[in-house]
Amino acid sequence: MAEMQNDVGLIGLAVMGANLARNLADHGFRVAVYNRTSAVTREFKSTTGRSERLIPCYELSALVASLTRPRRILLMIKAGPAVDAVLRELTGLLEPGDVVVDGGNSFFRDTERRQQELAAIGVMLVGAGISGGAEGALHGPAIMPGGDVRAWPLLRELLQTIAATAPDGAPCCEWVGPGGSGHYVKMVHNGIEYAEMELLAEGYGLLRRAGVDNADCARIFAGYNRGRLAGYLPEITAAVLIYRDPETGAALIDRIRDNAGSKGTGRWTVDSALELGVPVPTLAEALFVRYASGQVELREALAQPDPGAAESSGASAEALASMLEPALYVGKVCAYAQGFALLKAAAAAYSWDLNCAAIAGIWRGGCILRSVLLEPIRLAFQRQPGLENLLAAEFAAAELAPALPPFRTLLGRAFALGTPVPALASALGYWEVLHSAQLPTNLVQAQRDYFGAHTFERIDRPRGEFFHAAWSAADDGRSDVSSRS
Amino acid sequence: MAEMQNDVGLIGLAVMGANLARNLADHGFRVAVYNRTSAVTREFKSTTGRSERLIPCYELSALVASLTRPRRILLMIKAGPAVDAVLRELTGLLEPGDVVVDGGNSFFRDTERRQQELAAIGVMLVGAGISGGAEGALHGPAIMPGGDVRAWPLLRELLQTIAATAPDGAPCCEWVGPGGSGHYVKMVHNGIEYAEMELLAEGYGLLRRAGVDNADCARIFAGYNRGRLAGYLPEITAAVLIYRDPETGAALIDRIRDNAGSKGTGRWTVDSALELGVPVPTLAEALFVRYASGQVELREALAQPDPGAAESSGASAEALASMLEPALYVGKVCAYAQGFALLKAAAAAYSWDLNCAAIAGIWRGGCILRSVLLEPIRLAFQRQPGLENLLAAEFAAAELAPALPPFRTLLGRAFALGTPVPALASALGYWEVLHSAQLPTNLVQAQRDYFGAHTFERIDRPRGEFFHAAWSAADDGRSDVSSRS
Repeated sequence: MAEMQNDVGLIGLAVMGANLARNLADHGFRVAVYNRTSAVTREFKSTTGRSERLIPCYELSALVASLTRPRRILLMIKAGPAVDAVLRELTGLLEPGDVVVDGGNSFFRDTERRQQELAAIGVMLVGAGISGGAEGALHGPAIMPGGDVRAWPLLRELLQTIAATAPDGAPCCEWVGPGGSGHYVKMVHNGIEYAEMELLAEGYGLLRRAGVDNADCARIFAGYNRGRLAGYLPEITAAVLIYRDPETGAALIDRIRDNAGSKGTGRWTVDSALELGVPVPTLAEALFVRYASGQVELREALAQPDPGAAESSGASAEALASMLEPALYVGKVCAYAQGFALLKAAAAAYSWDLNCAAIAGIWRGGCILRSVLLEPIRLAFQRQPGLENLLAAEFAAAELAPALPPFRTLLGRAFALGTPVPALASALGYWEVLHSAQLPTNLVQAQRDYFGAHTFERIDRPRGEFFHAAWSAADDGRSDVSSRS
Repeated sequence: MAEMQNDVGLIGLAVMGANLARNLADHGFRVAVYNRTSAVTREFKSTTGRSERLIPCYELSALVASLTRPRRILLMIKAGPAVDAVLRELTGLLEPGDVVVDGGNSFFRDTERRQQELAAIGVMLVGAGISGGAEGALHGPAIMPGGDVRAWPLLRELLQTIAATAPDGAPCCEWVGPGGSGHYVKMVHNGIEYAEMELLAEGYGLLRRAGVDNADCARIFAGYNRGRLAGYLPEITAAVLIYRDPETGAALIDRIRDNAGSKGTGRWTVDSALELGVPVPTLAEALFVRYASGQVELREALAQPDPGAAESSGASAEALASMLEPALYVGKVCAYAQGFALLKAAAAAYSWDLNCAAIAGIWRGGCILRSVLLEPIRLAFQRQPGLENLLAAEFAAAELAPALPPFRTLLGRAFALGTPVPALASALGYWEVLHSAQLPTNLVQAQRDYFGAHTFERIDRPRGEFFHAAWSAADDGRSDVSSRS
């Protein structure tokens, strides 16, 4: 093999890596490919075509030697120790100025540790979240690169060429920020994805419980997909619901077991929110329902005719569908509000200076979240970069006000029917809590002061002054309500 | 000071430590006390009395030298680096066989690390969760010790003597298990405590929103406190609501700002649940509302007349109160179910062999959670140690069935009124999800297979067989629904 002729190296030929390699080759790049198991590389080579621009390598050293300098290497391998193992091998082969892009779902703190390790030999590690599934990898994913910004000029053309384009023609790939911010943004993307999937599933569950069949459910979701909910997930929901099992001819969805798996990013998102003190109840409920979905035996043991649940929804399928649309819209906006609030908190905590408008822009195409909602979100952050919460955006306030009454009615119907809608309900709770100038948590703080002398602030005194009350007789001799500031 | 005469050393004289020292002295133990700041020790000594059994020490070495052997030292200092700092100092002073009890809210993994460090010099570190607030520390807390079981005979009399007693006379202190299990159990105690406090606050908020005044709210909670909800938190809720601000003569609760703080254990509980894959939505909502309660400016900016919210609840105060009681009961049982499910998962993951009946027994007295509900919980686990989830206990099934219809009605009223009840709603969601033999998450798993080829199981095939469907035309040539097992 000729030396130093290939534009980019790609390591890891599982479904995402293989399709990204094809995507790169289709765009004219010469791609040296490598997989730890040589048979995978051979199989890839023999089934893929595009042979003149996909150059198989059977040693990492051969791959590295074949690249133009500064080298660009894309890792598409499973997050975790495998990434460290490959990076250790590469360390002996790379030179200062080379760039390694980790395109997997690595935990952002791991990315930052690896960036430091590679910086010691002058190699820049870019953590790039890539979303779009197998299909997106092949035809254009959304790409969220972050790290040492000096790597961006070396990657920009490569990544923006293979990325999806937004409806306005912009590439769905922009530099996100320093450190692990690229992987962090992808993590939050996935956290929101969990929420949107669960919201759609709850809507589907409610319709089915109300007697709507799969074909009508598919029609209803296809209808949503022509409006403000339009996006990839409603689209594939409709496609999934009309898919017929070739074996039985029946709707395949009815044969699929309800245990839904998860692979880490959804959990990390909630973890990070807990650490940063950001409420993300809808993202958390989506995760908890996946956990509960795995408790098959317990659920089967507990299942019984639901005490007090109504037999019928008391509403026609059309009426239910017309209430479900605003319900899903509120739920979706609340899920995004939680995700972007988390991005804002992370940007502040880690000094990342994230551009939320640019992030919404990236997500408009290619990724699992792509939907028409991203454009108003992008514009809201563009007009008001300091926007603290998406619920305060003009479009959200205007669209949500008329959506709330049918949303509330729908939740009442769901409760009466005994069908679980925890993520939907959490979204209403999120909206209500953030729109409450006065929460009943004054009672919580009073209780904390009662049993633990944790003190409280007063509404008739400036913030930052703390008081303790002698709630009980046993409050040994302190004055009744004393300042502790 | 005479050498080797004191029964126990106590380090840290903040409110909990000072009261535990008094408690120990009141029970006849000679307690050597020490605080990093000598002035605190002097102040404690001069204001406390009981002088013959509270011996002030102004050097750690003096405290250690004054103790009978094997020495017993109780740390009552703030969780975190301060604990490590004191342990480092003690390391040079202690001898093999000595026991140090960390009675603070240390993170259980820190406790396990410290146990290993001290084991190297033959000293046993016991992580003991202590609950009951200042009052409980003085008159009898619940104590949850865990670690090297060889330390238990040296501590048993000491700790059980100062602990609270349950209604049946049993001490609210039993050996919990190995490693960091004592601190873990206390952490979960606090996680449930967050949930119960939030549930009560939501009930209070709903009553107030429906026009019930503080005095009537207090009467309603005092009424609950005579039934199956009876316990410390409803009791102090009633006490808080009737407390009058000495300065203004008005109800103090109305002057207390609604930002509720948190100090770590609630967050750790949800963190651990995420790690172990256990759904704890009500514990999480309680935490998220505390976080949101701190977003004072955002909430004030968003607050507005609630679009579409009803003016009145359409129910009398009595009717609301009679629906709120079953609602709070379901909420409370679901919060405990989540907490105990987490304990079971931790026991399995960390090989702790926790006795849930004993833990419920400990919590019957002294601690913030003490309530009449702990006795049926204790009996349920005693009869059925393998009980996977509290919702499957006979008492829970029997009591919750008639409570669900009014609970559902109440949630509908709360939604109509526009008053936030996220923790209550999450509890109903938890109940519904676990009682669903079929969740709509078959759609989630189908979506995952659609975009990421994550595969699914089929209800018409055995568990553990995985399938992938060629959902879209682009699913390059794979057979329609193929086995991937």
